[in-house]
Amino acid sequence: MRTIDWADGAVVIIDQTALPHDVRSLTLSDVDALAGAIRSLAVRGAPALGAAGALGVLLALRQARAEGWDDAGLAAALQRLREARPTAVNLAWGVDRVAARLPEGEAAVAAEALAVLEEDVAVNRAMGERGADLVEELCGAGGLRLHTHCNTGALAAVEIGTALGVVRALQARGRLGRVYADETRPLLQGTRLTAWELGRMGADYRVVVDGAGPSLIARGFVDAVVVGSDRVAANGDVANKIGTYPLALAAARAGLPFVVVAPESTLDPATPDGAAITIEDRSEDEVLAWAGRPLAPAGARAVNPAFDVTPADLVTAIVTERRVVRPAAGERL
Amino acid sequence: MRTIDWADGAVVIIDQTALPHDVRSLTLSDVDALAGAIRSLAVRGAPALGAAGALGVLLALRQARAEGWDDAGLAAALQRLREARPTAVNLAWGVDRVAARLPEGEAAVAAEALAVLEEDVAVNRAMGERGADLVEELCGAGGLRLHTHCNTGALAAVEIGTALGVVRALQARGRLGRVYADETRPLLQGTRLTAWELGRMGADYRVVVDGAGPSLIARGFVDAVVVGSDRVAANGDVANKIGTYPLALAAARAGLPFVVVAPESTLDPATPDGAAITIEDRSEDEVLAWAGRPLAPAGARAVNPAFDVTPADLVTAIVTERRVVRPAAGERL
Repeated sequence: MRTIDWADGAVVIIDQTALPHDVRSLTLSDVDALAGAIRSLAVRGAPALGAAGALGVLLALRQARAEGWDDAGLAAALQRLREARPTAVNLAWGVDRVAARLPEGEAAVAAEALAVLEEDVAVNRAMGERGADLVEELCGAGGLRLHTHCNTGALAAVEIGTALGVVRALQARGRLGRVYADETRPLLQGTRLTAWELGRMGADYRVVVDGAGPSLIARGFVDAVVVGSDRVAANGDVANKIGTYPLALAAARAGLPFVVVAPESTLDPATPDGAAITIEDRSEDEVLAWAGRPLAPAGARAVNPAFDVTPADLVTAIVTERRVVRPAAGERL
Repeated sequence: MRTIDWADGAVVIIDQTALPHDVRSLTLSDVDALAGAIRSLAVRGAPALGAAGALGVLLALRQARAEGWDDAGLAAALQRLREARPTAVNLAWGVDRVAARLPEGEAAVAAEALAVLEEDVAVNRAMGERGADLVEELCGAGGLRLHTHCNTGALAAVEIGTALGVVRALQARGRLGRVYADETRPLLQGTRLTAWELGRMGADYRVVVDGAGPSLIARGFVDAVVVGSDRVAANGDVANKIGTYPLALAAARAGLPFVVVAPESTLDPATPDGAAITIEDRSEDEVLAWAGRPLAPAGARAVNPAFDVTPADLVTAIVTERRVVRPAAGERL
């Protein structure tokens, strides 16, 4: 089953808020239900958001016909979809790519949206192999011990995944030693989603709290850090899930590779550097409560930035489906 | 109420596993119950563990009399107590300091144990003022914005606290802007204990996930990082709760002070450097479940180191009750 797909005139997703205890799908028949699923992280991950943006245009067009929206109504719906999450560039990229075909009618829009999904699978497969080649080159012989953050697997894409696609390729080559997976607070994508994928993959893995990664790196437990990205600025600064930057600091101090795996659609030449990236602030409740029960005393406050920015000089390599760029060595995108 | 005290022939502690929702005390009448409370973190924090070790000797001596233990039985009980947690040096320090008075009888042991508690209050008050002086000197004018980790407040000591004692002193001086408190996974001492103390103090604070601290520091939200310690090696390397090291890396990169506040009893000249510090590994369940409910898929594994080591070159200053030492500037303990 794909993380996100099109079936019977609706977007069908695996509900990632229910994993790992329940594997269930959600059928989303209107564009605002899709935007809500994006905001609640029922579907998440940069490549999957690109697919969601693409299918969302098809959904919106069909809804516009059925409900008699004018062009302004359709444009407003696409804008609500684009803005459902501000940091990941892939969502807007998917919307804009398919929206460009709107003048050609529904068949063209449907073909473009479905092409985004098919391409995503091919792109992820290519990134996985290229990233595995790079990690083998950088780390040398033996079972490779990788540290990763958040979920960048099949659940973050249509299939396969970005950084976890590299893990999958190394596992297939018999080169995978162990994966350390950050739990990724506040929503525990590592514990819930990455552990689930690694378990199904048959990989040797350990979940760790987010604070533990840097010292595991310092203590010699890790050969390389591999992560995904939600937006790469023109200068090579990398936005990714909150908690990524400390891993880059630790890898740099330990002299280990810090490798970002992301499709070309995540590269954003319109954003000059990390300071220009909008960082999504999410609800305080995500930090202060769990499963509806308060963790903190009454009246407690939180701040909940969902992403951080790793400066280009800490990024050993960015691997896309087409190339490897080495920002820390001064290479430009 | 003190975090830990002696009353009616027993050790009485605030049960920190029940905070912030319940404020209740535990009465511990034998040495193995005390060791169990230490292991479960019902009582925790380096200075409070020093007091627990001290009172534990008195408890063990009285139990030896009541139950007819010989000297070997008493020595074995003290060893179980000493080993209840391996990383914090204060526990063994408290045991050894009071055990040295055993040949003089119960009155001398009781006097020494209670002196440890009284001194702890005075020591913490002195550290708070000295640390506040230092932070004012390092950060200059305006409301100071501090980032802290775990709980280093009154709950980590007999009263007052170490790093949070500095926060308290700055608040009393009208110099406190805001405190960012890491939630401190896996046991959420920041969310549960530090937020509770900061709320009672009337401080402006925000809880953040552990992965967020380094990027808040990079984005200019913070003027200084202040933390406690469980053991400082002879070369100035600092063991503290897991998740401290990334804050030190981020502070160094941002050019901000990273200040460690710890009593002289936390300095361990017998341990040459951080590599020689035993890092306590705790249960996988602390990471993989919450409140008895699994977070991870069945069969998931975790590693759960409770502490990390920050190298001396990243430590701007260590503040004790007697002095300020600046390891990053090459000063030796």
